[in-house]
Amino acid sequence: MSQASINQICIIGVGLIGGSLARALRQAGFCQEIIGGGRSSDNLKQAVALGVVDRFQTDLAKAVADADMVVLAVPVGAIKPVLSAIKDKMKPNVILTDVGSTKASVIADVKAILGHVPSGFVPGHPIAGTEKSGVAAAIADLYKDRRVILTPLSETDRNSTDLVRAMWECTGAEVSEMSAEHHDEVLAATSHLPHLLAFSLVDTLAQMDEQTEIFKFAAGGFRDFTRIASSDPVMWHDICLANHDAIMKILDRFTTDLDELKSALNNSDSSKILEIFKRARAARDRYTQSEQ
Amino acid sequence: MSQASINQICIIGVGLIGGSLARALRQAGFCQEIIGGGRSSDNLKQAVALGVVDRFQTDLAKAVADADMVVLAVPVGAIKPVLSAIKDKMKPNVILTDVGSTKASVIADVKAILGHVPSGFVPGHPIAGTEKSGVAAAIADLYKDRRVILTPLSETDRNSTDLVRAMWECTGAEVSEMSAEHHDEVLAATSHLPHLLAFSLVDTLAQMDEQTEIFKFAAGGFRDFTRIASSDPVMWHDICLANHDAIMKILDRFTTDLDELKSALNNSDSSKILEIFKRARAARDRYTQSEQ
Repeated sequence: MSQASINQICIIGVGLIGGSLARALRQAGFCQEIIGGGRSSDNLKQAVALGVVDRFQTDLAKAVADADMVVLAVPVGAIKPVLSAIKDKMKPNVILTDVGSTKASVIADVKAILGHVPSGFVPGHPIAGTEKSGVAAAIADLYKDRRVILTPLSETDRNSTDLVRAMWECTGAEVSEMSAEHHDEVLAATSHLPHLLAFSLVDTLAQMDEQTEIFKFAAGGFRDFTRIASSDPVMWHDICLANHDAIMKILDRFTTDLDELKSALNNSDSSKILEIFKRARAARDRYTQSEQ
Repeated sequence: MSQASINQICIIGVGLIGGSLARALRQAGFCQEIIGGGRSSDNLKQAVALGVVDRFQTDLAKAVADADMVVLAVPVGAIKPVLSAIKDKMKPNVILTDVGSTKASVIADVKAILGHVPSGFVPGHPIAGTEKSGVAAAIADLYKDRRVILTPLSETDRNSTDLVRAMWECTGAEVSEMSAEHHDEVLAATSHLPHLLAFSLVDTLAQMDEQTEIFKFAAGGFRDFTRIASSDPVMWHDICLANHDAIMKILDRFTTDLDELKSALNNSDSSKILEIFKRARAARDRYTQSEQ
């Protein structure tokens, strides 16, 4: 199956993520037509008015009917109902992919609703910022130089994976492939755990703040550290439940290490404290350098 | 004592913090002359060449000899040796202040080295960014619209506090007064604990990264969350020991709350998870709005 055979793409969920993908694909001329699917006709009308998609359908069964590729660009908590709505309505050889922040849960949802893993199913996850949201924030270069992880299964056709890879490469992203388990472990560590800690810390301090106005005296470091606590609570609740096992594992690991630092502090163990801080700084600096 | 009577200020430690203060005071014409004091003549020569201070002295006893005001702009770990070097060398009515990130420890150092709290001693802390360091990074508007906390003691003259307040107001900072204990509690919560968590998290992940290259897949949220883990390990080690009690208290509070979130996750307790995330997001948003 060559790229030229992708005539119509249906993107379900035209917000920042789905909308930016649509813009990038139109700019690259990856397909002939992009259909936006979703529940809110107001949002979809805006998407058409902004030139993000060609047309829209709020009836998801109709939205996917003629699509050669279907992209589920909805939060992980919405995957199941969307799959139920489009089940048996897609073309037999359709390429089906998603953008969910967790992968094992999406695969489980596909198995539960479709009864099997279709050969056209390629789980995916673009790792791109989501501070803003909504179709109005969608930009064609959101994925430029960002990472996209695909987690194809043994049931997945190589051709399907190659097509989804080609789609993301069109947007300027760098595509990696790994197992869903590994993806979930990596994201639990670098994204889900930091979000949990930021939410938890801000909640702890908010209770203090009621008495003592501590936030008034917070500096830039605090602002950066807690930025992710401004993320959507419902979306992160869904991610926490969807990636429960991997998150519990890394959270246990973190709290064990934090306890170690805590007892070093408790014993005023200078060399231990300094060792941890130095190792962390070196790792953070290596990471920053590799980013440049 | 009026502002006009401040003829000479000696700033010991002419890095980002001390250097920026010097620049702001020169720009405002707060005093006639600024002497830079410190160990490194290379750094101090640079400070003179950059026009940050008028002249310098590496002999701290000489540096403070004629000063009407002495500002200790060194990390909290260096307060004691500096005090030992300038003890009995300052003018009898000198105003003495500092910029340390912890206040009870600096006060204890003053009592230990000087034997008492002089009426001219006004503990202070400008809450300003320190990602960069060194005199070359010093800018006159570092403190503009930033907060400065003064923690005068019962022994402190009101006039001394007013003069230190006037000095910081010159730089464009907003000055607050509170007890040293309250300062240390507030900073433990909004600055010291976030630094500890960032160091600890990055250290945990760095050990995973050796096997699995997880940092490669980290996004912008992670970069912001861990920025403070690039801070100076020695300075933060000093702060942790200096503000040990307040940090242990807030760390205990945080780990209790984190355990609660952990058990909510473990029980897939949707409403509890959502409650914590929503409360945190609301608090973070209130804080961001108050910043604007």
